[in-house]
Amino acid sequence: MAPSDYSKPFINVSSPYPYVAVVELDRPKKLNSFTQQMFTDIGSVFSRLSVDPDVRAIILTAAGDRAFTAGLDVTAASGGHIGGDSNPGEDVARKAWALRRHIKEIQEPVSEIEKCEKPVICCMHGISYGAAIDISTCCDIRICSKDSRFSVREVAIGLAADVGTLTRLPHTQVPMSWIKDICLTAREFSAEEAMTMGFVSGVLEDKKALLQRAYDLAKEIADKSPIAVQGTKAVINYSRDHSVADGLDYIAVWNAAMLQSKDVKDAMLSGIQKRTPTFEKL
Amino acid sequence: MAPSDYSKPFINVSSPYPYVAVVELDRPKKLNSFTQQMFTDIGSVFSRLSVDPDVRAIILTAAGDRAFTAGLDVTAASGGHIGGDSNPGEDVARKAWALRRHIKEIQEPVSEIEKCEKPVICCMHGISYGAAIDISTCCDIRICSKDSRFSVREVAIGLAADVGTLTRLPHTQVPMSWIKDICLTAREFSAEEAMTMGFVSGVLEDKKALLQRAYDLAKEIADKSPIAVQGTKAVINYSRDHSVADGLDYIAVWNAAMLQSKDVKDAMLSGIQKRTPTFEKL
Amino acid sequence: MAPSDYSKPFINVSSPYPYVAVVELDRPKKLNSFTQQMFTDIGSVFSRLSVDPDVRAIILTAAGDRAFTAGLDVTAASGGHIGGDSNPGEDVARKAWALRRHIKEIQEPVSEIEKCEKPVICCMHGISYGAAIDISTCCDIRICSKDSRFSVREVAIGLAADVGTLTRLPHTQVPMSWIKDICLTAREFSAEEAMTMGFVSGVLEDKKALLQRAYDLAKEIADKSPIAVQGTKAVINYSRDHSVADGLDYIAVWNAAMLQSKDVKDAMLSGIQKRTPTFEKL
Amino acid sequence: MAPSDYSKPFINVSSPYPYVAVVELDRPKKLNSFTQQMFTDIGSVFSRLSVDPDVRAIILTAAGDRAFTAGLDVTAASGGHIGGDSNPGEDVARKAWALRRHIKEIQEPVSEIEKCEKPVICCMHGISYGAAIDISTCCDIRICSKDSRFSVREVAIGLAADVGTLTRLPHTQVPMSWIKDICLTAREFSAEEAMTMGFVSGVLEDKKALLQRAYDLAKEIADKSPIAVQGTKAVINYSRDHSVADGLDYIAVWNAAMLQSKDVKDAMLSGIQKRTPTFEKL
Amino acid sequence: MAPSDYSKPFINVSSPYPYVAVVELDRPKKLNSFTQQMFTDIGSVFSRLSVDPDVRAIILTAAGDRAFTAGLDVTAASGGHIGGDSNPGEDVARKAWALRRHIKEIQEPVSEIEKCEKPVICCMHGISYGAAIDISTCCDIRICSKDSRFSVREVAIGLAADVGTLTRLPHTQVPMSWIKDICLTAREFSAEEAMTMGFVSGVLEDKKALLQRAYDLAKEIADKSPIAVQGTKAVINYSRDHSVADGLDYIAVWNAAMLQSKDVKDAMLSGIQKRTPTFEKL
Amino acid sequence: MAPSDYSKPFINVSSPYPYVAVVELDRPKKLNSFTQQMFTDIGSVFSRLSVDPDVRAIILTAAGDRAFTAGLDVTAASGGHIGGDSNPGEDVARKAWALRRHIKEIQEPVSEIEKCEKPVICCMHGISYGAAIDISTCCDIRICSKDSRFSVREVAIGLAADVGTLTRLPHTQVPMSWIKDICLTAREFSAEEAMTMGFVSGVLEDKKALLQRAYDLAKEIADKSPIAVQGTKAVINYSRDHSVADGLDYIAVWNAAMLQSKDVKDAMLSGIQKRTPTFEKL
Repeated sequence: MAPSDYSKPFINVSSPYPYVAVVELDRPKKLNSFTQQMFTDIGSVFSRLSVDPDVRAIILTAAGDRAFTAGLDVTAASGGHIGGDSNPGEDVARKAWALRRHIKEIQEPVSEIEKCEKPVICCMHGISYGAAIDISTCCDIRICSKDSRFSVREVAIGLAADVGTLTRLPHTQVPMSWIKDICLTAREFSAEEAMTMGFVSGVLEDKKALLQRAYDLAKEIADKSPIAVQGTKAVINYSRDHSVADGLDYIAVWNAAMLQSKDVKDAMLSGIQKRTPTFEKL
Repeated sequence: MAPSDYSKPFINVSSPYPYVAVVELDRPKKLNSFTQQMFTDIGSVFSRLSVDPDVRAIILTAAGDRAFTAGLDVTAASGGHIGGDSNPGEDVARKAWALRRHIKEIQEPVSEIEKCEKPVICCMHGISYGAAIDISTCCDIRICSKDSRFSVREVAIGLAADVGTLTRLPHTQVPMSWIKDICLTAREFSAEEAMTMGFVSGVLEDKKALLQRAYDLAKEIADKSPIAVQGTKAVINYSRDHSVADGLDYIAVWNAAMLQSKDVKDAMLSGIQKRTPTFEKL
Repeated sequence: MAPSDYSKPFINVSSPYPYVAVVELDRPKKLNSFTQQMFTDIGSVFSRLSVDPDVRAIILTAAGDRAFTAGLDVTAASGGHIGGDSNPGEDVARKAWALRRHIKEIQEPVSEIEKCEKPVICCMHGISYGAAIDISTCCDIRICSKDSRFSVREVAIGLAADVGTLTRLPHTQVPMSWIKDICLTAREFSAEEAMTMGFVSGVLEDKKALLQRAYDLAKEIADKSPIAVQGTKAVINYSRDHSVADGLDYIAVWNAAMLQSKDVKDAMLSGIQKRTPTFEKL
Repeated sequence: MAPSDYSKPFINVSSPYPYVAVVELDRPKKLNSFTQQMFTDIGSVFSRLSVDPDVRAIILTAAGDRAFTAGLDVTAASGGHIGGDSNPGEDVARKAWALRRHIKEIQEPVSEIEKCEKPVICCMHGISYGAAIDISTCCDIRICSKDSRFSVREVAIGLAADVGTLTRLPHTQVPMSWIKDICLTAREFSAEEAMTMGFVSGVLEDKKALLQRAYDLAKEIADKSPIAVQGTKAVINYSRDHSVADGLDYIAVWNAAMLQSKDVKDAMLSGIQKRTPTFEKL
Repeated sequence: MAPSDYSKPFINVSSPYPYVAVVELDRPKKLNSFTQQMFTDIGSVFSRLSVDPDVRAIILTAAGDRAFTAGLDVTAASGGHIGGDSNPGEDVARKAWALRRHIKEIQEPVSEIEKCEKPVICCMHGISYGAAIDISTCCDIRICSKDSRFSVREVAIGLAADVGTLTRLPHTQVPMSWIKDICLTAREFSAEEAMTMGFVSGVLEDKKALLQRAYDLAKEIADKSPIAVQGTKAVINYSRDHSVADGLDYIAVWNAAMLQSKDVKDAMLSGIQKRTPTFEKL
Repeated sequence: MAPSDYSKPFINVSSPYPYVAVVELDRPKKLNSFTQQMFTDIGSVFSRLSVDPDVRAIILTAAGDRAFTAGLDVTAASGGHIGGDSNPGEDVARKAWALRRHIKEIQEPVSEIEKCEKPVICCMHGISYGAAIDISTCCDIRICSKDSRFSVREVAIGLAADVGTLTRLPHTQVPMSWIKDICLTAREFSAEEAMTMGFVSGVLEDKKALLQRAYDLAKEIADKSPIAVQGTKAVINYSRDHSVADGLDYIAVWNAAMLQSKDVKDAMLSGIQKRTPTFEKL
C-alpha cells in the first residue's frame, strides 16, 4: 500500500522521493482551517506513516499561498461543545465530563504526530494560527518562509489552549519570557522573531525555497540508517521529559539491542569506502 | 478597596488604567535595595493582587533613574543571620535549623510573585543586581531598557543564591552554558546580552519607552478574558515543571470547567462582529 | 600531589595559575580522537580534580590546531563490541546484556566530568565531532574559536548516540527544533550557528584568544569563595532536573550549612573594603 | 446498545443489574487462557464500557470452576514473535523494533482496563496465572475465592513479564520483599497469602460467595453518584503516580468543575432525608 | 508563651509533660465535627507548634467518648459553596475559579499538620469519618481504640474527597485494592481492619489505654535529640515522594550540617554511660 | 576466579552450590558490627558478584548465633568525622563539605548491594540493628529467624539515618505509620512484627531453618534463566521509582532485545517436556 492511499479529505499524502512522505493540508479556500474530522484524520495518517516501512522522513506542508492553517474552523465547529449553549440546564459536572473527554479526543490524534516514529519536518508559510502551533510543536523540525505570520490565538477567543500548545511550547525550549508574551497577548509574530527565539530553526525566502529545504533535509535523513534515525528521535523525546540519570539509563537499554544491527557495520564501512550505504527497511 | 491601599513602605501600588496594577519599588536613594521587611511586604502585595478582581495584569517597576534594584541592602541586613557571628558557641545544627527556616521565610514572599494568578510584567532599568534576578525570574514577561546592567551577585559575596535565582534561571529556558557563565563569575551583563540569550524578551530605548511598552502589553492582556489569560499562565507554569503527558492531562481537567464560561461565546462573537468584548470580573 | 601528576597517556594535566587546572587532550596526530582507554582515563582525571583542594576551576582543551577531537577512534575500537561480528552465534540477549554493561562503562567516566565539583570550561576549536559533543555537554561553560566545526556524528555511522549526547543536549536548553535538526542529519554546524542557538556562550577569533578567554574566566572563578562557586554549580545542576518547588527546598537545606562559612563574612568585608579576599581551601 | 452487544468470542458481557456490567472470560476448556485476539478484544470491551452511560461498576470474572485464567495460550501463540526462530538471519535491531512494537500492542489493550473510567472489581478463582496478574493489577479491587492459586509465571518461561505485571505490582503497594519473592521464583501462592500481603482485599469461601460479594460491592458503588465514584478512581490513580503536592493541586482543579454538580445537593439531601438518591447518567 | 495559649474555640492545646503538646478537638456535642473556622484554626495551631522550641512531640486527640470527629459539619457549611445554589446564573468558569481557590484554602491549613516539623501522633476513637481521614493521613503515627469506626464519606455525599484523603491515602502505603474498596463504597471499616491493612500501627483497648500509649510514644520521642527526630521526619517525608537516588542525595546534604551538632556526641556518650541525655532546645 | 576469592577481612564469600554465592559477615565477637573498611569492602564484594557469570543468586548472612549485625562499630569509628571535635575552629561550611563527601562515600558501597544485578536474599537473625536495616533494605528478599530483634538506632544516637534507611524504608512499601513509629522511637521490633508489617516476607524457626529456606529460594532462582531473573529484578526496581506509563515503556525497550534470547525457547520446551532446562552463563 502506497502512502498516497492514506490520503483523506483535505489531507493529501504523497511520496515524491523514495522513503520520503509528504502530508499536505489541502483546504486552501478555507485557509486550510481544521474541521473536527480533519483532526481525527491527520492523527490516523500519522499513525499509519509511523509504522510504514517505506517511509523514513515526513514533510508536513499545506496547499495554497496564503496559509499553513488559520486554525480551527470556528464556523464548522459552531455546533460543537465549545462556547455552546445547546443544553443550558445540563448538570455542570456532566458537561465538564463530556468536555474533558472531548478535549482528550482532540488531543489524541494531534499527539499521534508527536508519537510518529519517523522524523517530521513542519514547513509553515503565511497565516499560521492556532492549530498551526498545536501541530507544529508535535513535529521534530520547524522551518518557515519569510511571509509566515504566527499567532497563539486562544486567549483572543476566550480560552486557554488545550490541544497541546501550552503544554508543548515550554518543551520546545525557547525562552519562557517570550512564550508568556505571545501566549498571553495572542499577538502575531513574524518569521524573523520565530527564528531569533528558536521556535523555528530555519527561515527561507518563499514557499518554494521552503519546500526545497525540507526535501533536502528529508532526503538527508532518509539516506541514513532508520535504526539510528528513529532511535535518535525516540531518545531525544524521552530525555526532554526525564532527568539526565534516567536518560542515560534509557539509552543504554535501548542500544543494547540496536547496536547489534547490521546497519552499524554497513554505515561504518560505507564511511571508510566513501560510498552511500543502503539500509534494509524497518 | 483599591490597589493603592495595598501600598507599603518603599512599595507603591497604583492602578493608572482599569484592570492594570503597577507595583513600584520606591527607595531610590538606596538604589531600591531590599530590606528584609520589603521582601515580606512585596509578597503580601502580590498575594493580595492575585485575588483582586479589579486587577488583570501587573507591571513591576522601580523608582528613579539609576536602578531597578541593587539587591539586598547588606547594611540593613547586617544584624541578621547571614555571615554573622552573634553567637559563636551555638550548636551548628541548631544554627542550620534556624538558617533553613530563615531562607524559607524569605523564599516564601518571593514565591508569592510567581504564584500570583495574574500575569506580571517586570520592567528593569539601570542597576539590576541580586534580588533583581530573584524577583524577575518569578515574573512572566521580562523587558528592560538599554541602560540595564544585570548581575547575579551571590558568588561575589561568598554564597550560592538561595532566594530562587539558581532554581528559577534554568526554568526561564535560556542556554545553560550562559547561565553557568553569569552565575559562576558574578559578572555584569548588558541589556543586549540579556536579549540575545532570551533572558528578556524586549529591550527599549529608555525607561520611558520601557514603561510605555509595559502599559501596552498590560492593556492588551487586560482586555482579554481573565479566565483565558489566567488559565494560560497557570497551565504554562504547570507544563514547565511536568512531562508532556502530565501537561495534556492537566489542561483537559482544567478546561472541563473553564470552557463552560460565557467568555468563550462572548469572545467569539466579538471577533466575528469586530468589536471589543467586555468580560465579567473574576 | 600536583595536578600534573594526574596526567595520563594522551591527557595532560597542568596548573599554569594557582587554583586553575588545565586538562589537555593530547593526541593531535590522530585529531585527538578517543581510544577506549582515554574515556576511562579522562573520567579518572576529573574525579581526582573534583576533590583536589588546590583546584577551583578547570579548563578542558586539546592540542594542535586542527581539532578539539574527531570523536571515537573507529580503527582503535574496531576490535570492540560495536558493529562487530566476533561471535555470530552468541545469544542475542546475552550480547545485549554485555552491550548494556559496556555502554554504562563508557558513560560512567564521561559522567565524572559532569559530576566534577569544580566548574569546567570547555574550549573547542577546529573539528569537534562525536565525543566532542558528549564531553562538552558535561561541562559547565562551552566556548569555541571561529574555526570550529561541530557534528553529532552518530546517525551517520548507524547508531543513536549513547554516551550522553542525546540525553544531555536537551538539558543544555537550546531550541529543540535545532537539536533535532543537527542530531537527525549529522550535518556539520559552525561556531556562529552554535552561538546563535546558545550551544556555546562565546566565540573567539582563534585558539589563542579562546584560551585567553578561558583563563580569564577560570581566574575570575578561582578568586571567588569555593564554597559559593561549587555550591552554585551543584544547585544549578540539581534545579535543571527538578521542579521549582524541589529546587527551592534543596537550596534551603544546602545553605543551612554553607551560610555558616567564614567566607561569607570575608567576602562581604572585602567588598566593602574594596580588596581581594583570600579563601581557605575546600 | 446494551453491554451484551459488546461481547466477543470467549468474552461475554452482560448486565444482570442496572448500571452493573459483568465481563466474563469464557474459554473454560482451555482454562480461560488468552489468545492474542482475546487481549485485543478485552481492551476494546473495556474502552467501550468506559464511556457507556449505562455502566457504573464492572465485575471481571471467568467461566468454569477450575481457573480464572491460566495465562497466555502458549500453543496458540507459538507462531508468534516470542522465542520464535522464523527468520534466523533477520537483523537483530529490526527484530527488536518489531518486538517493541508488538509488546506495546499487547500492553495497550490491557492498559484499557486500567484507563476504564468505571471501577472494576476483579474476581479470581482457581488457577490464576500469568496474564491473571497482568489483568488483575489493572483492576481497582481484587477479591478471590479460597481455592485460588496465583503465580507470576514469566521467569519460569525465561522472560521478564512485559504486559504490565512487573510495572504494576509495585504500584499495588504490597511489600516489595514479597513482590520480589513471587516474581523471582515464579512460585505459586495461595489466597490466604494474597490476603495477608494485601494483593487481594477479600477472600471468599467459594466462587459463588465470591460473585455475591462482587455484586454487593458493585451495587453499592452503582448506587452512588457516578461523578463522585469516577472522580474518586481518577484521582487515586493520579495520586499513586505523583507527589502529595501534585495530587492536591490536581484534585483542586478537578473539583472546581465537579462540585458544581447537582449530585452533591441530591446526595446531601438524600442523606438527611434517609432515602436513596437517584443520579443522572454520566 | 505556653502551648495552651495556642488554644482556639473547639481546639484545646495543653502540655501535660515537658516537650509534649496535646491538641484536642473539643466540640463533643457535635461529635467534634468541623466548622470551616476549625479547619483554619487547626492549621494555625500546628504551624505555631511547628516552630515552638518547647514542643518536641504532639498528640492529636478529641474530647468525649463517641467520636474522634464525624467530619465536616454539613449544617454549618450549608451556606457555603459546596452544593449551593446561591447564584444559579453565575458563570460556570468563575464559579469554578472560586471553588478552586476555596478548596486550596481548606487544603492549606490541613497541610500545615503535615508540614509541622514535630512528629504528630493521631489518636482516633469512636466515629472517625471524613475529615478524620483527611487529618490523620497528615499525621506521622496513627493509632486507635478498638471501638473506632472509620469511613471515607465523600462518595456518599456525591463528591471526590478534595481536602487530601485521596491524595494522601496512597502515600500511607497501604494496599491499593483496599484503598479503592473503602473510597469507592464509603463503607465503614473497623479498628481491626485498619490494623490489618496498616492504616493504623496500633489498636488499644479503649480511649484511656490509647492516650496512655500515645503519651508513652510521645515521651520516648521527646527524650531524643530534636535534631535527630525532626530530621528523621523531614527525610522520610521527602523520600516518600522521590526516587531512591534523590533521597540519598537529600539526606547527604541535610546531614552535612546536622552531624556537626553537639547532640551526636552527647547522645553517644550517654549511651555508653547509660544515662539519659539532655538536649538543647531547637 | 571463584567467588571465595572475593573474600575480605570479616567478609567471607563462598559458593556451596552451583550459581549460588553466600556472603557472610564474619566478625561475631563484635556482633558483626561494621568498621568503615567493611562498608567499602562489602560494596566491592557485591560489585564483583554483580558481573560474575558463575553467580545467579546471592545469600547475605552473618556468623555466630547472637547477631546479624549490631550496626556501626562506634568505638572503631570514634576517630572519624561524626560527633568528633578534632578541629573545633574549622570553618562550618568546609566541615559540611567534608561530611557530605564522607556520607556519599559510605552510601556508595551500600548502594552497590542494591545495584547488584543478581537477586540478593538477606537472612537476619538475633540483633539486627542500624546498618542491618541500611543493608537489608538494599536486598531483594528479606527473611529472618524468630529470635531476630530489629532496630533503626539512629535517633537514639542523635542523628537521622543517612546511609539509606530513611530513604529506602518507604520504598520497601510497608505502612508509613509503622515506619515513622520505629524510626522516631528507635525502639526494638520483633520478627513477628516485621512479618506482619511486611518488612520481611518469611520468619523461620531458627538460624538453621533460615539458611535452609534461603538455599531453597536461591536454588529455585539459580535454576531459572538468568536473562529472565535479572531482567525481572532490574525492571521491578525501575518501576518502584517511576510511574506506570514510564514502567511500561521501559520494559518494552528492555524486552525488545531480551525476548530474542534462546532461553525463552529453551524454557518453554523444557516446560512442555517436563525437564529442567540448562541456561548459558550471562
